[in-house]
Amino acid sequence: MYIENINSPLDLKKLKKEELPLLAAEIRDFIIKTVSNNGGHLGSNLGVVDLTIVLHYLFDSPKDAFIFDVGHQTYTHKILTGRKDKFHTLRAYGGISGFPKRCESEHDIEETGHASTSLSFAYGVAKAKNILVGSGEVIAIIGDGAMTGGMALEAMNNIAHTNTDMIIVLNNNEMSIGKNIGAISKFLNATLNDILIQEASYKVKDLVSALPFGDIANEIIDRGKGAIRSFVAPGIAFRELGFKYFGPVDGHNYEELISTFEKIKQINGPRIIQVNTIKGKGYEIAEKNPSKFHGIAPFDIETGETKSKPSGKTFSFIAGESIIEAAKENKNIVAITAAMESGTGLTEFAKIFKDRFFDVGIAEQHSITFAVGLAESGLIPFVCLYSTFLQRGYDQIIHDACIMNANVKFMIDRAGLVPEDGDTHQGVFDISFLRIIPNIVIMSPVFEEDFKAMVKKSIEHKGPTVIRYNKSAVRENENNKENIIASDFEIGKAHIVRESESKKNCIISYGQTLIDIVDAVNEINLDASILNLSTLKPLDEKTIIDFINKSDKILIIEENIKKGGIGSAILEIMADNEILKPVKIHALPDKFFEVATRNKLLELYKLDKNGLKEIISEYFN
Amino acid sequence: MYIENINSPLDLKKLKKEELPLLAAEIRDFIIKTVSNNGGHLGSNLGVVDLTIVLHYLFDSPKDAFIFDVGHQTYTHKILTGRKDKFHTLRAYGGISGFPKRCESEHDIEETGHASTSLSFAYGVAKAKNILVGSGEVIAIIGDGAMTGGMALEAMNNIAHTNTDMIIVLNNNEMSIGKNIGAISKFLNATLNDILIQEASYKVKDLVSALPFGDIANEIIDRGKGAIRSFVAPGIAFRELGFKYFGPVDGHNYEELISTFEKIKQINGPRIIQVNTIKGKGYEIAEKNPSKFHGIAPFDIETGETKSKPSGKTFSFIAGESIIEAAKENKNIVAITAAMESGTGLTEFAKIFKDRFFDVGIAEQHSITFAVGLAESGLIPFVCLYSTFLQRGYDQIIHDACIMNANVKFMIDRAGLVPEDGDTHQGVFDISFLRIIPNIVIMSPVFEEDFKAMVKKSIEHKGPTVIRYNKSAVRENENNKENIIASDFEIGKAHIVRESESKKNCIISYGQTLIDIVDAVNEINLDASILNLSTLKPLDEKTIIDFINKSDKILIIEENIKKGGIGSAILEIMADNEILKPVKIHALPDKFFEVATRNKLLELYKLDKNGLKEIISEYFN
Repeated sequence: MYIENINSPLDLKKLKKEELPLLAAEIRDFIIKTVSNNGGHLGSNLGVVDLTIVLHYLFDSPKDAFIFDVGHQTYTHKILTGRKDKFHTLRAYGGISGFPKRCESEHDIEETGHASTSLSFAYGVAKAKNILVGSGEVIAIIGDGAMTGGMALEAMNNIAHTNTDMIIVLNNNEMSIGKNIGAISKFLNATLNDILIQEASYKVKDLVSALPFGDIANEIIDRGKGAIRSFVAPGIAFRELGFKYFGPVDGHNYEELISTFEKIKQINGPRIIQVNTIKGKGYEIAEKNPSKFHGIAPFDIETGETKSKPSGKTFSFIAGESIIEAAKENKNIVAITAAMESGTGLTEFAKIFKDRFFDVGIAEQHSITFAVGLAESGLIPFVCLYSTFLQRGYDQIIHDACIMNANVKFMIDRAGLVPEDGDTHQGVFDISFLRIIPNIVIMSPVFEEDFKAMVKKSIEHKGPTVIRYNKSAVRENENNKENIIASDFEIGKAHIVRESESKKNCIISYGQTLIDIVDAVNEINLDASILNLSTLKPLDEKTIIDFINKSDKILIIEENIKKGGIGSAILEIMADNEILKPVKIHALPDKFFEVATRNKLLELYKLDKNGLKEIISEYFN
Repeated sequence: MYIENINSPLDLKKLKKEELPLLAAEIRDFIIKTVSNNGGHLGSNLGVVDLTIVLHYLFDSPKDAFIFDVGHQTYTHKILTGRKDKFHTLRAYGGISGFPKRCESEHDIEETGHASTSLSFAYGVAKAKNILVGSGEVIAIIGDGAMTGGMALEAMNNIAHTNTDMIIVLNNNEMSIGKNIGAISKFLNATLNDILIQEASYKVKDLVSALPFGDIANEIIDRGKGAIRSFVAPGIAFRELGFKYFGPVDGHNYEELISTFEKIKQINGPRIIQVNTIKGKGYEIAEKNPSKFHGIAPFDIETGETKSKPSGKTFSFIAGESIIEAAKENKNIVAITAAMESGTGLTEFAKIFKDRFFDVGIAEQHSITFAVGLAESGLIPFVCLYSTFLQRGYDQIIHDACIMNANVKFMIDRAGLVPEDGDTHQGVFDISFLRIIPNIVIMSPVFEEDFKAMVKKSIEHKGPTVIRYNKSAVRENENNKENIIASDFEIGKAHIVRESESKKNCIISYGQTLIDIVDAVNEINLDASILNLSTLKPLDEKTIIDFINKSDKILIIEENIKKGGIGSAILEIMADNEILKPVKIHALPDKFFEVATRNKLLELYKLDKNGLKEIISEYFN
């Protein structure tokens, strides 16, 4: 076994070139085994095993700075840089992250989890090397999918213009999270006529050489040939921008990879090498179904089937289902996502309503203002994004959707605590940053029934609306369901889950947390009123005030950052109405959140049933 | 006079082609006169007089949808679409906006004020026409400067890929707000060899025709020629993406403009026409100094000098001055902006520290993550942006700057109420959306002295910091200055401006508002304690609690949206500490804000001295 002896990039450099593919095979096995146990990003990681080995073989990390875009393709990098022995803890609480983390290794330069940031960061590292007279190459590794993100394009423009010393490894795997969308992919996949034209032109050149004007003619043909070549070959746009372009190189061919990178090391300036890789390379089942194996739960290696079936419908599934139902009734309904088609539950919608579905690629900003344009023309666009990626479109929500009071329906998936991906993927800020925007309506469902009612009411409402929900299965909980949600949801109307007899204790919350609150209150046998806000903006001030006025102590519980959340909003209402009563807000603290399962995170922050029992009995006793 | 008879685009269509330049001259005079009185965007508007006339002459707005990027070049459009008689109220309270507004005219399709949104919006309008089987062209008019913005590039990619019927008018004026930065500008300005090569290739072609292989050879030369032409001509990258490219056309030549647009109308698909214009065209003083006349205060037409000199140093000026002072002492300090060099006071810095200054163009997202890359490499970057444009980089602040706790220093200009530009440019959300992010430090200065101390402390602090300040002159107010600010500013330390004898009334605030608060309290002769928070995150909890505990009633005053602001933060602290006292938050309501001078806005929302007198005496009496 080669892998046993690799504890740092220095060990790797001791291998002969011919041994690298053997090591690669071992690493692939190791990754497949680990991900089959822990879940994780499989396709992207298997695709770059060879590329990552070659980079560490030829360059000297961390003096040469490797900056991985998105960071979900760094497993080989982690294995080669001393984290092999901890790799079995991948994505587990207390274990190593699925993304680069500086606390894990000096070889992790940038921490990331969102797409399209690597070029800007790398540009900073490169410029700092200029100013501080540092040495070493700066190498950004970015996939084709991330190249559609606006900030990557902003960086490309800036890097080329300033003739910065930098290598961009453009990993073309012909699909990022979903299929690669957009014209940029054209640059990467043209080839064909290239060689034909080149051969034909040699023949002409031979003939022309014998003529007067031979020199100028040949020069023209040479230039023309070059130009033709460029025209049909990939990379033309990059060359036009000012990059030196190399490739495409077969990302699984060590000879090609090594010789090309050796060439690139000899020159300066902004360089792009296009490396074509196959997602899931080396694991046939993943190669055939790259979307499924992009991010996967624990699975059986033989069959590729995930081990545990989800325990029910997810909120994402219900979102997709609701939009389909609505679209069948109303032909003006369309759906938009930004490379999150399957994640946001839109796969079926996309099949049924091909012409009313738009996946704009990794381009959240564009997705929102595009939706505003549709809405202002009379359509009803549903924009389906993850909470964490919605942050990318914040200005578009304010400046485009809300100032114009546009009829855009945001479906915000993966709000609250998000499992396994850690700090970069948490959806814990959305309520705080959305509720401050004028004109917006925000809703938070508990069950399938109120979710679907919210979708219906969103469509009836003229103006921007948000429904935000967790990455989790929808719970059933037949015992209390009819009490927790209203049978007739209305925007701006809170629902009293129960009223206390003694009128002393009151609990206010929203979303799935309510199920555990009701259970906790029952189990500790507390006499408490419970309010389900349902709509988070506009808040049902009248009901809230009545409810609080009747109580002695108020506990507000929310799965969102405490600062600026709904707890604060209720404090604002109380101050405005001169209500002086003790309030405790139990919400998420002012920090970034670690890698763990959703259940573990809820446990850590006392938002599961047991934690809530503790919080509730402590506060009211 | 032609202008007198133009009350709608229909009137324009009655003119003969030859009369259009005469109308243009009149419109230019009218714009110059109005802007010389009211202030406004002069250069960009004078540049597109001819283009706008031709568009309205040839197309049928609003059936043909005109979508102006940024919207700061719509004066001619406004004059031609029935707003000529109100044009003297430009940018005045109750008057017409400097940007497109749907409430003003059916010819204003999109409301905007930020750059780079037009293509996404237009794409939405175009797709909606597909789905709803609408008629009419969709025409986006975008400047070269706005093309560096990521969302414009996201849209370009998406539009080309989907072969959408749309016309993009690329207005190349070789500078947007400042000089145009970036490689994209290269595409727009190449020409030269083009014709030479084409001529030479004809000669070769004649010779080759006589030969065997003649056909294939000519085909190759043709293709080569085409390719060469494309290679050196502008527009290649756009053609590669899948656009039909026209131009460049002289944007002040009616023959060229009309004949090219007539050609473009005959075809379908995504079309780009590049129109080269001169900023300030027709007003020589502005042509020579386009930066100064981009956005200008009232000025003397003869001399070009602004009428009223600013009444003192602005906060922007002090920001620039402070960074220069710091950079002289510390060679690791660098400064970054995104096309706001002069607006954020960096003009001098850019001259003195040429290699340590980076204007990345309209690309806020990139500017921030670039700064993070610099910071992680040991430099201390100051990122200077307007509050409203900071919204564009929200995810980069969270995901890049704050998760990595990067040593980036944000200087946030035009925070709070912003004069004359209206809803799209207000800086009223920043405290609410920033204070919820872990690791961030937020400061708010009153005077030059505490501003400079804050800059010093920012540099000493390791991690992301924000200093936010108004678009206004720094006030002196010798009477109370020494009391309002601390002589020794420390991050996280509030300053007690005065303590009441009776200990009844307490006022908490920050920033420039404090000057008027102190004056107001003096004038109404109220016995009140006053606290200057100075640091808005982390709040000085101990001092705040002590201060509140000593008082009966608390008034918090802030120039930020009420929701989620510092008032809320203090309510959170009070709840956590079980302090039950009446609190009133006097801040900005949950709405977007109109066009007016800063003084008028402060008056409207009772944040000027008179308004504060009213609020304070009402609350405490």
